[in-house]
Amino acid sequence: MNAPLPPASLNSPWQLAHRAARMNPSVIREILKVTERPGIISFAGGLPSAKTFPVAAFEAACAKVLKNDPTGALQYAASEGYGPLREMVAAQLRTQAAAAGLTWNVDPAQVLITTGSQQGLDLVAKVLVDAGSRILVESPTYLGAVMAFIPMEPEVVSVVSDAEGVDINALRQAAHTGAKRGQSPNSAWQILESDPNLPRFLYVLPNFQNPTGNTMSEARRAALSTTAAELNLPLIEDNPYGDLWFDTPPPAALTARNPEGCIYLGSFSKVLAPGLRLGFLVAPKAVFPKLLQAKQAADLHSPGFNQRMIAEVMKDGFLDRHVPTIRALYKAQRDAMLDALTQHFGAMPVDATAAELDNRLTWNTPAGGMFLWARLPKGMKAVDLLPLAVDKGVAFVPGAPFYADHGDERTLRLSFVTPSALDIHRGVAALASAIRQQQGV
Amino acid sequence: MNAPLPPASLNSPWQLAHRAARMNPSVIREILKVTERPGIISFAGGLPSAKTFPVAAFEAACAKVLKNDPTGALQYAASEGYGPLREMVAAQLRTQAAAAGLTWNVDPAQVLITTGSQQGLDLVAKVLVDAGSRILVESPTYLGAVMAFIPMEPEVVSVVSDAEGVDINALRQAAHTGAKRGQSPNSAWQILESDPNLPRFLYVLPNFQNPTGNTMSEARRAALSTTAAELNLPLIEDNPYGDLWFDTPPPAALTARNPEGCIYLGSFSKVLAPGLRLGFLVAPKAVFPKLLQAKQAADLHSPGFNQRMIAEVMKDGFLDRHVPTIRALYKAQRDAMLDALTQHFGAMPVDATAAELDNRLTWNTPAGGMFLWARLPKGMKAVDLLPLAVDKGVAFVPGAPFYADHGDERTLRLSFVTPSALDIHRGVAALASAIRQQQGV
Repeated sequence: MNAPLPPASLNSPWQLAHRAARMNPSVIREILKVTERPGIISFAGGLPSAKTFPVAAFEAACAKVLKNDPTGALQYAASEGYGPLREMVAAQLRTQAAAAGLTWNVDPAQVLITTGSQQGLDLVAKVLVDAGSRILVESPTYLGAVMAFIPMEPEVVSVVSDAEGVDINALRQAAHTGAKRGQSPNSAWQILESDPNLPRFLYVLPNFQNPTGNTMSEARRAALSTTAAELNLPLIEDNPYGDLWFDTPPPAALTARNPEGCIYLGSFSKVLAPGLRLGFLVAPKAVFPKLLQAKQAADLHSPGFNQRMIAEVMKDGFLDRHVPTIRALYKAQRDAMLDALTQHFGAMPVDATAAELDNRLTWNTPAGGMFLWARLPKGMKAVDLLPLAVDKGVAFVPGAPFYADHGDERTLRLSFVTPSALDIHRGVAALASAIRQQQGV
Repeated sequence: MNAPLPPASLNSPWQLAHRAARMNPSVIREILKVTERPGIISFAGGLPSAKTFPVAAFEAACAKVLKNDPTGALQYAASEGYGPLREMVAAQLRTQAAAAGLTWNVDPAQVLITTGSQQGLDLVAKVLVDAGSRILVESPTYLGAVMAFIPMEPEVVSVVSDAEGVDINALRQAAHTGAKRGQSPNSAWQILESDPNLPRFLYVLPNFQNPTGNTMSEARRAALSTTAAELNLPLIEDNPYGDLWFDTPPPAALTARNPEGCIYLGSFSKVLAPGLRLGFLVAPKAVFPKLLQAKQAADLHSPGFNQRMIAEVMKDGFLDRHVPTIRALYKAQRDAMLDALTQHFGAMPVDATAAELDNRLTWNTPAGGMFLWARLPKGMKAVDLLPLAVDKGVAFVPGAPFYADHGDERTLRLSFVTPSALDIHRGVAALASAIRQQQGV
């Protein structure tokens, strides 16, 4: 991630901060420049389908907010966020936890409205990361999170992960110095101030992860929650996709299992629309005041108008009617992609040997969200395949850049939410053709 | 500004970053808690008058944006901001510079739309401030800026300022090590990386400053611009109030005089509405890409919906019709405050001695903006007067907290934009009564 500083003229007055050397455009953005060609079928996007934006509901909400409370919507406001929206968020999380069999007493006072959940990541980094401190991430993980953490100059450490989530033994190894915590009569962080080896947190995306589409299993959640508590390792749980389940809701949130040890990040971008830039975080009392202070310094508050728009849309159970339509659309498109993959590459074998799988394209079956994760046959690299695929009219994102280290160069991320089912079939056909050509078949 | 870390339980997993110890609620917020009483006449606010919000124009713009380009408004978008809005900003700044007799070729590609101008301050700090580096500010200065800079752990140094702006000799002294710059064959910041004494920038609010309402004179601007260029000292020019002039526009922007050496911050909060949280910055090529990267990491982009709303409202010269109405309102209210002050404390003497001024309440005559700056007679402290004033039904903000060091405890900030002219007269009468009582007169 380190790049040389750009050249400066002899008389340039600008001395950049040390951290600026690590702040660089995402590798993926650079890769995707080759895919910006008219008419291409793109599995490369990370955007929700614009078809799901509830435009009519927003129109009605705008008019109502500006009619009923123009001053509230347009004046400066509290950094914490709009009260009724914070209450709705808290109620929703309580309900979801209860449906999963847990009691999570989310207090609206613990809810901070953020300018997209991306800002939650920025605030978390400001409050928890010192230069040189270690933070743990899944492997692979959401690049935007790494991009948010990097300015605070952490050492980002990948924890080996499988289809169920982070590997618990690998986590123990990465966090082993954490066991020292709490063994001193002094307050915890005074000890740790001098312990450079203890990671500040593990960042996890348990539901329909970006980029893999994988969901952390109940067993893994239980083990992770117990292990993190035992290690005194904070968890940052990022859940932008959790509501987009296809058949059954995912297991209960990690934060619901140990609210004092977790910060939970959520978003309205995937259930309503990203262009309003609203998300939220839920944090325990030990860190909430500092996150609030960081929020105030960062942008005073998130737009009060947008917060009222979303509260207006959400009241009376709108999401209970709206989100199922998103689930149905994305599920149908996931199915189209699975069908097309099966048609062009043959069904995924049930009892294949590792060697058999190694010689074919493999993929997972995401239970929700926006992404499917595939792996090329042995000897191929996604980044080499991309230009050929683009020539044939289809784009994807190579998976390697999503790993903080040692990326698997055979992996690729396929988004199924934007193209139509017909285009998904065409795109997968083009992908198959590119793979065959690359293989010299 | 350093406060001890809050106590942690023995088993708390949260280790806060070092910077968190300096991130604390604003002193002013704490002070103002005593002023939150129903029926009080408040000169303490920092908010624009809600009467100036163009609600009907926003209603029309919302409807139009959602009708004409719902996907553009609601989808993820470029971190730089909405193109047409960036063009409007660039055009407006070019026009204003030309009206002041300068050519400033603002390129829309240099304009970054931010989530309020507060975010511009956060981004500037991330890109330019290292822990322990020095930054210079006026004395007094906008506290929200200091709050945005503090998380990057600078040493904040006040430069002595008078009614015309920062004192140039004091600035030379504060920045004297900057003269070393450019004397090495290496690129500028490689030298400076090892020079802890060179300030990273001077932060200035030249127009109708918060808190003083003062405006930097043309002579001082010319001297500051020349001196800063000579010292190789970057300027961060913050201009949220510049459009709110009462009789004549303020002198040309500092950035217009040396665009390569300045970052300019602007806001839509005072000419349209703060609740949409939109501002902008203009930066030279030497720093723009890093600011953009910091922006992307901070919140991906500012709300596309809001950007389109404002662009829709602004097109066809709306501001040319709307802003004069704000100027007229605020000017009338400033006049009401000046009248009331004169009535209760006697006209400000024209040729008074320092001793004469020292024994009475003094105030300035802001040429625009929202604030008037007053100074109590010798021996009084604004912070001691406040509870008494509140008892009598009027609130203000003591001025001392606006100084990064050695605050003048006799100063107070009076906002004239929110109360009616009648309430301004009543409030000043209450203030006079409180001062007399405190003086034992």
